[in-house]
Amino acid sequence: MQDDFIEIIGFIAAILTTAAFLPQVYKTWKTKDVSSLSLPMLLIFFIGVFSWLIYGFLKNSPPIIFANSITIVSAFLLMYYKIRYGKK
Amino acid sequence: MQDDFIEIIGFIAAILTTAAFLPQVYKTWKTKDVSSLSLPMLLIFFIGVFSWLIYGFLKNSPPIIFANSITIVSAFLLMYYKIRYGKK
Repeated sequence: MQDDFIEIIGFIAAILTTAAFLPQVYKTWKTKDVSSLSLPMLLIFFIGVFSWLIYGFLKNSPPIIFANSITIVSAFLLMYYKIRYGKK
Repeated sequence: MQDDFIEIIGFIAAILTTAAFLPQVYKTWKTKDVSSLSLPMLLIFFIGVFSWLIYGFLKNSPPIIFANSITIVSAFLLMYYKIRYGKK
């Protein structure tokens, strides 16, 4: 199969899974309600997304790099909110 | 860089991001509380994960196939819970 076509499927995947995750970040930003988020879990997730990013670069996969560049910012923001608003 | 090493990084990524997602599924299963989940969002996520799975097969990437095989089951379960318990 043509490489371009494969990468298009990857980008569709990247856009959909990233889009599904963003409302969670928006909701947390709006409500500042971080009670249901666990910091160790967010940290594991952050390291995981960081590893995907490295994997994307090593495999030369634009969709993986694209999706995880956005998701690592989201994951970082959620961690920040948890640390900032979690104590209240 | 050696291919095996690249795939190991991918598997670390796959295990970490999958592990971070499972407690959410477990919590939903235990509490049956699906009020904070949106069905259109779950559907978008499910189609996204399905697309990643196709991408993983086309790119011949074991970590992508591994991570998304587990995640697609989780996404399916969350959709099932939402449809089954969402009306109450």
